[in-house]
Amino acid sequence: MEGAQAVREALRHARVHELFVTDAAADRHPDLVAAARDAGARVVPVTDRAAASLSDTVTPQGLVAVCDLLDVAVAAALGERPALVAVCAGIADPGNAGTVIRVADAAGADAVLLAGDTVDPHNGKAVRASTGSVFHLPLARDRDAAAVLDACRGAGLTLVAADARGELDLHEPAARPVLAAPVAWIFGGEAHGVQADLAARADHRVRVPIHGRAESLNLATAAAVCLYASAAARRWSGEA
Amino acid sequence: MEGAQAVREALRHARVHELFVTDAAADRHPDLVAAARDAGARVVPVTDRAAASLSDTVTPQGLVAVCDLLDVAVAAALGERPALVAVCAGIADPGNAGTVIRVADAAGADAVLLAGDTVDPHNGKAVRASTGSVFHLPLARDRDAAAVLDACRGAGLTLVAADARGELDLHEPAARPVLAAPVAWIFGGEAHGVQADLAARADHRVRVPIHGRAESLNLATAAAVCLYASAAARRWSGEA
Repeated sequence: MEGAQAVREALRHARVHELFVTDAAADRHPDLVAAARDAGARVVPVTDRAAASLSDTVTPQGLVAVCDLLDVAVAAALGERPALVAVCAGIADPGNAGTVIRVADAAGADAVLLAGDTVDPHNGKAVRASTGSVFHLPLARDRDAAAVLDACRGAGLTLVAADARGELDLHEPAARPVLAAPVAWIFGGEAHGVQADLAARADHRVRVPIHGRAESLNLATAAAVCLYASAAARRWSGEA
Repeated sequence: MEGAQAVREALRHARVHELFVTDAAADRHPDLVAAARDAGARVVPVTDRAAASLSDTVTPQGLVAVCDLLDVAVAAALGERPALVAVCAGIADPGNAGTVIRVADAAGADAVLLAGDTVDPHNGKAVRASTGSVFHLPLARDRDAAAVLDACRGAGLTLVAADARGELDLHEPAARPVLAAPVAWIFGGEAHGVQADLAARADHRVRVPIHGRAESLNLATAAAVCLYASAAARRWSGEA
């Protein structure tokens, strides 16, 4: 975890083993250094050059924490009675994955499952784009996307694929009860959306209606519209 | 306009004066070169090096079109009876501005108004992030954000500021009639949202509810949720 914000969240929510810190960063963030010591982490002073070599940003902040990985098993992430879950199936861009995790957190999702060829949520860009949300809700990874969908169904979730050519319009009346029930939203890759075989496994394929002349929404904005449509439907139906 | 997709949209929707094209790009896109000639544009063969110097991307596609600017006056963009308008008031990042234009297009907005210190929508990154939507709906720019809001109100629009601390929750019943009526959504800067003086001028300040532990949504995803909430409310109320 890199930078003051991520390190602060890590100290709050994760197990931190080591904190590498430059003198300047230690002066700027004495609270973080103290919190790391309190948490039992080894605090290691480093030079600017060493901090830069640990960093994957253009302007390193001089603070890098080594933490336990965040992800858990799929069953553990789903828990007993999940009501809203986001499945990322083939998201390649770490910024998009982090943004979807942030949106899922904001919309009240119980977990985010990273399935198939989806980027690692521990990627620095994904962590930054999530602005702390990687720590807020359970994350699980499994390359076997079909197994992830089976686990969701086993947990009582209706499988809904976000699909620009889906048979159900997000805002049509028939979509309302689907969205208000416990749902796993499946989001696919940036270029081609949800793979055909996974979309076929879903109970419904839902499209965000396009009212103007845009061809589509990008992945993160489509996920936001879909997840918040579920949050709204749950609330309106009195289930939330 | 740079690259095959943007040049194709420009030839379809805008006045193109010149097309600079490398030999390789001309071989790849003979249709675009022919369309440019048909449109009365001057087609200018250039070297790879010249194309690179015209480009602001890392991997230039060898196609750059010089077009008329796209923006019109605020009154012209608003037209007679606008029903849904997005006002960008202080958006600094061109990718965000382009994404908001794309989302506004998809949600069926009548116009996007770029007010105050908002980035120029002709910026190459904004054009690319809009994936053609800069050509699809009227754009207007005015540094005087208060004048833009006055023009919106004059056109019969209710002014609604997207505001994380807003008094109205996007999904509460009281928000429904507000969103279903003709609305100008006001989106502020990435760091601090809508400026206090502009939020105070709005008729309502609406917050996207945060159900989990995320602090907020990012600008583009919040705009998507808000604009689509209006699209849904209009449709459900039978006005759309």
